[in-house]
Amino acid sequence: MKYALIFGGSSFEHEISIVSAITIKDKLNIEYFIFLDSNRDFYLIDKDNMKSKYFASGEYKNSIKLEITKGGFKYKKGLLKKEFFLDFDVVINLIHGRDGEDGKIPAMLEFYKIKAITPNVEACSVSYNKVLTKAYAKEMRVNVIEYEIIDSPKTKFDFPVIIKPARLGSSIGVSIAKNQDELNYAFDVAREFDDLIIVEPFIEGIEEYNLAGCKAGDEWIFSKLEKVEKKEFLDFDKKYMDFSRKEVKINENLEIKEKFKTEFKKIYNNIFKNALIRCDFFCKDDIIYLNEINPIPGSMANYLFDDFKNVIDKLAKSVELENDIRIDYMYINKIQMAKGK
Amino acid sequence: MKYALIFGGSSFEHEISIVSAITIKDKLNIEYFIFLDSNRDFYLIDKDNMKSKYFASGEYKNSIKLEITKGGFKYKKGLLKKEFFLDFDVVINLIHGRDGEDGKIPAMLEFYKIKAITPNVEACSVSYNKVLTKAYAKEMRVNVIEYEIIDSPKTKFDFPVIIKPARLGSSIGVSIAKNQDELNYAFDVAREFDDLIIVEPFIEGIEEYNLAGCKAGDEWIFSKLEKVEKKEFLDFDKKYMDFSRKEVKINENLEIKEKFKTEFKKIYNNIFKNALIRCDFFCKDDIIYLNEINPIPGSMANYLFDDFKNVIDKLAKSVELENDIRIDYMYINKIQMAKGK
Repeated sequence: MKYALIFGGSSFEHEISIVSAITIKDKLNIEYFIFLDSNRDFYLIDKDNMKSKYFASGEYKNSIKLEITKGGFKYKKGLLKKEFFLDFDVVINLIHGRDGEDGKIPAMLEFYKIKAITPNVEACSVSYNKVLTKAYAKEMRVNVIEYEIIDSPKTKFDFPVIIKPARLGSSIGVSIAKNQDELNYAFDVAREFDDLIIVEPFIEGIEEYNLAGCKAGDEWIFSKLEKVEKKEFLDFDKKYMDFSRKEVKINENLEIKEKFKTEFKKIYNNIFKNALIRCDFFCKDDIIYLNEINPIPGSMANYLFDDFKNVIDKLAKSVELENDIRIDYMYINKIQMAKGK
Repeated sequence: MKYALIFGGSSFEHEISIVSAITIKDKLNIEYFIFLDSNRDFYLIDKDNMKSKYFASGEYKNSIKLEITKGGFKYKKGLLKKEFFLDFDVVINLIHGRDGEDGKIPAMLEFYKIKAITPNVEACSVSYNKVLTKAYAKEMRVNVIEYEIIDSPKTKFDFPVIIKPARLGSSIGVSIAKNQDELNYAFDVAREFDDLIIVEPFIEGIEEYNLAGCKAGDEWIFSKLEKVEKKEFLDFDKKYMDFSRKEVKINENLEIKEKFKTEFKKIYNNIFKNALIRCDFFCKDDIIYLNEINPIPGSMANYLFDDFKNVIDKLAKSVELENDIRIDYMYINKIQMAKGK
């Protein structure tokens, strides 16, 4: 399998995607690194240049510019502008947040019939918007924490509460409020990022578990079940400063893991084909709740898999393009006939 | 306002989109007609050629080929391949079904920062997948008809039932089954189009109402309330053969209309910005149910508006692009510093 990796994006998580891509570089054999800059230009990045400084300094602009086109990516070279096509089997979408996880890049890959490990448009919408995540999860009979949509800093819940912009990942714009003053402030912070704001009760002593996985053909592949250890609440920096973490606390109780797998499958089925996702769960009094779906988890949650490369290879082999639709103009011809033309 | 109209698409409703565009041609002043053929090539169609035969015959292939690019569409001309950009303010997405209503074209328009009257990616996902429509509607406190997802021709409901593939519009693949034999057949038909199949009870004597509208800035604009008159069930042909219908039965009871407007607003809010949509409702025993959301209704439901052009002009003026995101590489610089580099 020859892989291309696409990362960057016009996203609040642009930099996280770069770090994610640098991490993945050592875990998989990547043929081509495709960088989408904040201006939405595509660049082909030399493997040796896959260092965060290369992007932060703007040096990447000396790289070859790419165009997305039917079947893949191309560039033009020389005076005659000869076209070259990148030669890969599957592209891995590693753009976190906007562009990558809001459905734009998935839509374009599908439009141009490029095989990809990526959540599709529908999967992105369901994961990206927290209201839709809850709506979808309920429909699949998966528990979620109750919530309300607010358009002013008022809530029906007792403090403390969590305030979240509906449409951003990575804890951006998310705050805990212990009292009304904090809620006022948290509401303004969230409003910076989205018009749609939700509030949830902050539940003391709730446990957090992460499970990643995918369905490759008919085979379900699951990661280890991570028991998330954290203080009160991980903000943006804390969550990503230990990004390629090696020390992960695993829950090895098979019976417990089985329960999480059941919930994961309910979420993944029907909608997440071709994607490797991480479901973040809460657990309290033996009841499992879906917290959020990461349709493109940081560094693909590689640290949770024993044989990450093998997982990606299997998934890549199972990737399917959309069916073609044959247009025969039968309907128009019928109208023409009806009109006597 | 200078408009471009995009239609066609790799969609089961490709031909319907052509008919839709031909209808719109006489209702609005369109500067450019952009045809997306089934092979996903864009063509600039001369207004005089906006006739269904021109497409059915393949003649359209003699038209100028367009490329989608930042800010709009362009073509190259002459030996020097000089680039020309189409000069319009807003593009209207009139591609029904796949490509247009599944989020692909909306994603691309957003990616390339092209102002458009279109449902966005999220709006498409919520409308295109009937399971997500119901999930979203419930979350917005709008009633829906109960349903079940089936993966074999079995149902908990009493006959007659309606069988629908979850992801297609325009009644394609939808059947009524009055008994088990019909269910077996209907299930196979639906399976031709989607893996995800739903069943609903067929409710005798239920009334159907359509209401179209949009929010232009702070102003809500609603169409007339159409009382849908039909026999048992409109299949694909019946629904579209009378496509640009002039005789529409209107319910002029303001009190009743107000009730439908309330439900429409709950659906439209937050998600359908920049789109003119039509909500198809059921009504029984004074209870209103959402049946489906048409995020790009046939011929933009122009026949339901008294002053269609004015509605579109207002909506076009209110169209907003996504916010830019400034990438300052603060996070990466912080890591570099932390590493002492």
